[in-house]
Amino acid sequence: MPDLYNLSDEFWMSQALDLARSSICVAWPNPSVGCVIVKNNFCIGKGSTQSFGGSHAEVCALHDAMGKHYVLEGSTIYVTLEPCCHYGKTPPCVNALLKAKPKSVVIAVLDPNPVVNGKSIQILRSVGINVKIGICAEEAIWLNIGFFSRVITSLPWVRTKIATSLDGRSSLYNKKSQWITSESSRKDGHYWRARSGAILTGIGTIINDNPILTVRHFPISRQPIKAIIDDTFLIDSNSNIFDGSRVVIFTTINDKEKNKKIIDQNGEIILVDSIGKNSNKINLSSVMKWFAENCINEVHVEAGPGLNGKLLKNNSIDEMLLYFAPILIGEANTFIKIPSINELKDAVAFSTLESKLIDNDIRIRVYNYDRWNLIKEKCILQDMT
Amino acid sequence: MPDLYNLSDEFWMSQALDLARSSICVAWPNPSVGCVIVKNNFCIGKGSTQSFGGSHAEVCALHDAMGKHYVLEGSTIYVTLEPCCHYGKTPPCVNALLKAKPKSVVIAVLDPNPVVNGKSIQILRSVGINVKIGICAEEAIWLNIGFFSRVITSLPWVRTKIATSLDGRSSLYNKKSQWITSESSRKDGHYWRARSGAILTGIGTIINDNPILTVRHFPISRQPIKAIIDDTFLIDSNSNIFDGSRVVIFTTINDKEKNKKIIDQNGEIILVDSIGKNSNKINLSSVMKWFAENCINEVHVEAGPGLNGKLLKNNSIDEMLLYFAPILIGEANTFIKIPSINELKDAVAFSTLESKLIDNDIRIRVYNYDRWNLIKEKCILQDMT
Repeated sequence: MPDLYNLSDEFWMSQALDLARSSICVAWPNPSVGCVIVKNNFCIGKGSTQSFGGSHAEVCALHDAMGKHYVLEGSTIYVTLEPCCHYGKTPPCVNALLKAKPKSVVIAVLDPNPVVNGKSIQILRSVGINVKIGICAEEAIWLNIGFFSRVITSLPWVRTKIATSLDGRSSLYNKKSQWITSESSRKDGHYWRARSGAILTGIGTIINDNPILTVRHFPISRQPIKAIIDDTFLIDSNSNIFDGSRVVIFTTINDKEKNKKIIDQNGEIILVDSIGKNSNKINLSSVMKWFAENCINEVHVEAGPGLNGKLLKNNSIDEMLLYFAPILIGEANTFIKIPSINELKDAVAFSTLESKLIDNDIRIRVYNYDRWNLIKEKCILQDMT
Repeated sequence: MPDLYNLSDEFWMSQALDLARSSICVAWPNPSVGCVIVKNNFCIGKGSTQSFGGSHAEVCALHDAMGKHYVLEGSTIYVTLEPCCHYGKTPPCVNALLKAKPKSVVIAVLDPNPVVNGKSIQILRSVGINVKIGICAEEAIWLNIGFFSRVITSLPWVRTKIATSLDGRSSLYNKKSQWITSESSRKDGHYWRARSGAILTGIGTIINDNPILTVRHFPISRQPIKAIIDDTFLIDSNSNIFDGSRVVIFTTINDKEKNKKIIDQNGEIILVDSIGKNSNKINLSSVMKWFAENCINEVHVEAGPGLNGKLLKNNSIDEMLLYFAPILIGEANTFIKIPSINELKDAVAFSTLESKLIDNDIRIRVYNYDRWNLIKEKCILQDMT
């Protein structure tokens, strides 16, 4: 057969990654996983993780193939994450794989969950199945970056969304509330809201803009938590964010009377420690730990320059999702309030992931390389090809 | 024959555009043109404009084909600009084309030069040659945007190069001279210097940075003119820019003694009018007219925030070439000094052309849509397909 039909591992893994991508707002807080089963250069089964408690990708793909009466023995199974080998909401996927008797299993990345973490690979290899790991690894990590971050570092992956002019301005001095970027960019922003477990903002944004903070332009089965940093408990229980969904207020003030009003609105108050004595400044690291402990993989920040600056100072911005409108505003408010520096080497440096045109706007993603690399190293085995 | 071999007009025109692109710093101040001759879906000849006074692309391609003993009759000739029909430094290309007896001529855009402007198309059609126009038209216009701008509007195309942080800062308050963007971005910037006819800056940049302003990281047969906006004639004749190449100082002050010093350094002083009475502020429109009158197609600006702001106010920025380093600087100098506005609709708006990663930096090109559209309308015939 011509080479054209001898498709590479990368080709099939990218099909599995597409399947994983399709379930990104479904699997949540589980990782989104995709699986394709290939025999004689033909896809005989495919699947992706179902909603929490439902079947995993591997089981879906096996069922898909069996439903079409394909013989699984001798096949190659591509899966974007190491299969599980423990009993969770579903039985271990590795058992289902063993039963299928594939010739090979190709895995993008290890599952860093301590109860898995290479064990499934050992099990598969122990019965003579050929296991290949590390195909499209980086793409697979980005797909579930929050899950990996939470499991490996006990912190969520924090992505800050910024809408700005080319000259780095996010709002006019007179604070007249207007959209800087296009409708397409704003809709794109809702995808990133949708894949996050929480949307975080500051009390200033709530007071000034009174936003709803829901996912609207993207299909979703449940809304992310809304979270507010509110050092001195200024929140008004009539704010638009109280729409019946889960709202979490992080504060340092315990005001029982006000607590009741917020709880009546379906709100939840989390008392957190402050930075330094006699201060009401919330310790942002404690907030991030809370998110991880509550199974929030990705935190989506839409905040003003003040909170953005504090998060940066706290080393809590893992990724910036910047939407540049092709306009020049001149003297106005910046999107992030940070002090001046004396040497360029003291500037906060990110790594660039991608740049994309969205209609007339430009979307740029940059990330904290050290955090990313720390996560990557734990998901990639030394013997990976 | 299978469809694979029946290549489209767009395919061949893009080959011609590649040839044109290769001569972009050669043809100057002539437009860069590419030509391919195709017969039976096979390229039998190709050429691009030679340096000023040399052969045009069409003649080069015809010679190429004839040198290989191909029969030109019945061929299809693809050319990125309407062939000339007048005697300039070389005889009219249209005569050479007529002699070749092609079946068809496919042209990207009209030559807006009044001595051509559709006449060659009429000539070709009058002898029964099939002429198709408008294939890859926009790309062809961008390739020679400065030439079209000068011929159509009597103004050069002004491209401002900016190196900035994500938060729109181009230098620290302490003005410590440091590169913001990477070496790759700086090298890329030299390509844009190379294709321009003049590199423009302000006297402030000359005094603060004392740059050489030459093309170094790109092969070039001759350097662009160096041009300085120097309202009150502060230029020091010992500045690095005086390296024997052509330097033009625009000023409003006539100081005979100083003039001599500058002229001794191979410099040229252009006295221009000022804005308003009793002012030394140079009328930037007069500077731009001077460039067009002196056959400068593209002006490459590398200036500080002051001159950038004045050019913007004068509506003289046609394109911005922005290199974003993925860093946050915080309070520092912006790259363009413009006053604050009260309504977002008063922001200066550009259209976005492209966004590209250059190592870890992001290069964005935005342009003045109205100026571009005015030019485009004059290069595209109503009957274009």
